[in-house]
Amino acid sequence: MTFSDSRSNVRAVDARAEWQRAFDEAKKRGVEFSTLSGAALAPLYAPEDAACDPERDLGYPGAFPFTRGVHPTMYRSRLWTMRQFAGFGSARQTNERFKFLLAHGQTGLSTAFDFPTLMGYDSDHAHAFGEVGQVGVAISSLEDMQTLMSGIPLQDVSTSMTINGPAPILLAFYIACGERQGVDPKLLRGTVQNDILKEYQAQHAWLVPAEPALRMITDVMGYCARRVPQWNTISISGYHIREAGSTAAQELAFTLANGFEYVRRGIAAGLDVDEFAPRLSFFFDSHLDFFEEIAKFRAARRIWARKLRDEFGAKDPRSWMVRFHTQTAGVSLTAQQPENNIVRTAFEALAAVLGGTQSLHTNSMDETLSLPTEKAVKIALRTQQIIAEEIEVAHVIDPLGGSYFVEAQTNRLEQEAERYFQEIARRGGVVAATEQGYIQREIHRSAVAYQAAVERGSKKVVGVNCYVEGQQGPTIELHKIDPAVEREQHERLARLRSRRDASKAKRALGDIRDACKGTDNLLERFVAAAHAECTLGEIADVLRAEFGHYKEPKIL
Amino acid sequence: MTFSDSRSNVRAVDARAEWQRAFDEAKKRGVEFSTLSGAALAPLYAPEDAACDPERDLGYPGAFPFTRGVHPTMYRSRLWTMRQFAGFGSARQTNERFKFLLAHGQTGLSTAFDFPTLMGYDSDHAHAFGEVGQVGVAISSLEDMQTLMSGIPLQDVSTSMTINGPAPILLAFYIACGERQGVDPKLLRGTVQNDILKEYQAQHAWLVPAEPALRMITDVMGYCARRVPQWNTISISGYHIREAGSTAAQELAFTLANGFEYVRRGIAAGLDVDEFAPRLSFFFDSHLDFFEEIAKFRAARRIWARKLRDEFGAKDPRSWMVRFHTQTAGVSLTAQQPENNIVRTAFEALAAVLGGTQSLHTNSMDETLSLPTEKAVKIALRTQQIIAEEIEVAHVIDPLGGSYFVEAQTNRLEQEAERYFQEIARRGGVVAATEQGYIQREIHRSAVAYQAAVERGSKKVVGVNCYVEGQQGPTIELHKIDPAVEREQHERLARLRSRRDASKAKRALGDIRDACKGTDNLLERFVAAAHAECTLGEIADVLRAEFGHYKEPKIL
Repeated sequence: MTFSDSRSNVRAVDARAEWQRAFDEAKKRGVEFSTLSGAALAPLYAPEDAACDPERDLGYPGAFPFTRGVHPTMYRSRLWTMRQFAGFGSARQTNERFKFLLAHGQTGLSTAFDFPTLMGYDSDHAHAFGEVGQVGVAISSLEDMQTLMSGIPLQDVSTSMTINGPAPILLAFYIACGERQGVDPKLLRGTVQNDILKEYQAQHAWLVPAEPALRMITDVMGYCARRVPQWNTISISGYHIREAGSTAAQELAFTLANGFEYVRRGIAAGLDVDEFAPRLSFFFDSHLDFFEEIAKFRAARRIWARKLRDEFGAKDPRSWMVRFHTQTAGVSLTAQQPENNIVRTAFEALAAVLGGTQSLHTNSMDETLSLPTEKAVKIALRTQQIIAEEIEVAHVIDPLGGSYFVEAQTNRLEQEAERYFQEIARRGGVVAATEQGYIQREIHRSAVAYQAAVERGSKKVVGVNCYVEGQQGPTIELHKIDPAVEREQHERLARLRSRRDASKAKRALGDIRDACKGTDNLLERFVAAAHAECTLGEIADVLRAEFGHYKEPKIL
Repeated sequence: MTFSDSRSNVRAVDARAEWQRAFDEAKKRGVEFSTLSGAALAPLYAPEDAACDPERDLGYPGAFPFTRGVHPTMYRSRLWTMRQFAGFGSARQTNERFKFLLAHGQTGLSTAFDFPTLMGYDSDHAHAFGEVGQVGVAISSLEDMQTLMSGIPLQDVSTSMTINGPAPILLAFYIACGERQGVDPKLLRGTVQNDILKEYQAQHAWLVPAEPALRMITDVMGYCARRVPQWNTISISGYHIREAGSTAAQELAFTLANGFEYVRRGIAAGLDVDEFAPRLSFFFDSHLDFFEEIAKFRAARRIWARKLRDEFGAKDPRSWMVRFHTQTAGVSLTAQQPENNIVRTAFEALAAVLGGTQSLHTNSMDETLSLPTEKAVKIALRTQQIIAEEIEVAHVIDPLGGSYFVEAQTNRLEQEAERYFQEIARRGGVVAATEQGYIQREIHRSAVAYQAAVERGSKKVVGVNCYVEGQQGPTIELHKIDPAVEREQHERLARLRSRRDASKAKRALGDIRDACKGTDNLLERFVAAAHAECTLGEIADVLRAEFGHYKEPKIL
């Protein structure tokens, strides 16, 4: 890949100038030649466009700076975990879907909770009315969690739980559920999203203000480092930032900036960085722009590795690694011509794999219309299996490494992220920048710019602003939620409250209240409360009462 | 992309050795880490694995050796032609499908003929019984061709006709149809497959033996160079070689070897290479192995450019260019779980675009079960539109250029093809090698090896040897051919024969007979016969009578 002598360098310059002339003279199509995020793209990338020292900037897989992947063998040892985000209706119904997915070759579980659960309300709370089991599963208690995981031995499965504000409470239910199954917490594997910073920035499912929320997170880090050592304590999530309309560079920058903040908080709480950083994992979106996404994943690894080693002084190579789950972009799906979503998702999934993901959810074609049917989710899972088994892309590590274009994009994204890190530092860090509304405004600005590009037609969406068809209404069969779920969940909670040892539950909630006022580890208290049959809403109410409410900054 | 000094080179060697140690020590999955074609793959490609001088081996798009593409602007000026292979039933029914596809954004036409037409028999011939309109459209006369293209002004569309033995006759119908529409043949754009060599090697739709067939091809080259200058006179086809079970390297090597033979024949017939070579086009398969296919397309351009310039002495850069149509791999589709075919086709289509195709057919999910329904073909077309409009891959030329892996694969395929060229030369050229059965045996050997890999499970097919489901029978709606087509076509031919000027038709057939015995241009005679309302079968009968039958060599 080197020019053999200076004379050929001169000739190369001539050849390039000649190509450039021919290029400039030709008529071009009238579209915007930019990435999905709006970054300008050159028509051609040649060696001189990809400033990249292979040793310094790429390295080898499994070694610093991990640009080419976090494992020396990547998918030759183990494929990514095929993990479809699933959850609807009651714990029993979702348990059936989990078993359906495992039976069709899925290799990990990923739990979608309903709105009340995500907001820390029991199914029988007034705020839950009409929402129980609608967009995810309703889990209000240890009993629900036991039903959810019934027949699934927790030592044999890795489980992801997408929940944030009440994440430590749901994690407590899961740990307690394992204990009831007789499983040592040391054997539990999985992830709780527990990424509260991006809730204030993009997703809005918080329980309490940032500072007590961050204290709960360091409590989770500390507890898990000692007792649940294989558990990923935070899944630092770009997905929701991206789905809220950010660019690829913003997703990268804000996600990693949030990650750096968690690291700072852990260190400030007295933990050794190498004690908790290896259990931080990431969660990215894989959007439509095939190469920009691949470059984003590669840049994320390189940036994190450099910062963790060189700024945070981490010594354990596992602290330097970005291990990440990916979900294909929900916002890229269209209600129109839903089968087209199979195609979009396939490309997004391939980008995630070529970018070296550790775990992947592929959206079902109907997810923009309803929760997925069994048929739709199976096609989505088969998409991953075809990538894994048929198209032979998992044999070679970082197959795009060295591509002039991909290396140039990787560099660009790293540089754009670096500019955001500087601006965030200037504003006093991510918590301050979020409280100032800066991050939210940046995301909003990008969302508006993209929407405008679609409206003026410079970004195309097949079936929406081009190749539109007259047909109205969904053309595929949709999933429906059983309306009995809400009533049955009410009855279950009523039975639980009358059956349990009320004084024991009350004591457990009092212990949580005391820990809120003091410094005792909250997750430890949540696990005890789970065993005492306290409900999600009861525990969350204590937190809301003790820690108060978050006041959102004005953004516009 | 250069190491900055020799010291860092030493460090890079150490880093590689360290990675290799870690790699070797790790446990691997128990699968075969090879391409779909069975070529071994290294786990990692680094700069030193991709011997590539960017100036010499890649160059710039639109310039020798065209590795990065045949146009300086590629898809920034014009997207590939979206060209769905279509044809079934009667000319009128296929005309409707053509208009349906044009209305949904297709940009070129591609005609599938039925078996009788492909073999040079009229619809009312005994050999046609039960086959009329079944796998393509029945075209027995100029009248049928006029119906097929009714309401489609030939100066405004580019049309591909997939036919070989009788290709010059169908081309004559098309030229005559244009003349009846009042279109100057100089304005006709499109391709006739007309690649007879691969018929003897893989596809079996010949009319007459190789030597007279090759003479007809040089007649087509000569006639078109003068009268139909925008027409691609041969679409040199790897598709059928690949579908018969060849490897990627064999597809590449045999297709280009056939191309070299057509060039030799043209030169031997007294044509200037630069008079006809610019009108040779190619047709490749895009199979499941994502990177091997991309590398194949890049290698094809480089090999052809080098041979045409350096061995055949072509001076016109257009003679050096491989412009190609691509079809996704029909053999990769499964009858089981047909929606999975949407996913396979999407990846194959993306590989074709990243490989720089000029034109693309995406298979419909149901093509392994029946001819495509409108719904299925629309999803297939939308797949191309999503690649073109949504995933932003068409903005950058040869986006994988420089990838250590892709450059290494491109080199490998060029070297494997070169070994085949030498073996073919040793055997006295492609015609001799085909008559010896050598090429057929090579293809057969690969087909058997792949089948064995599927049977022992070292190559996986989702739904066939993994993730199998019990369900029987097609789960999607299928296209049906109207049984009335055959009878109506008989009636149409009977009316034609009673209506036309019989003595004029007889004279035209006599002129063809004379030209067979002499050296007059046969295509010129076919055009005259088309205007005289001679049928396909009548013209082909003259050729069969004059040129005799091809005797197939024993292969096993």
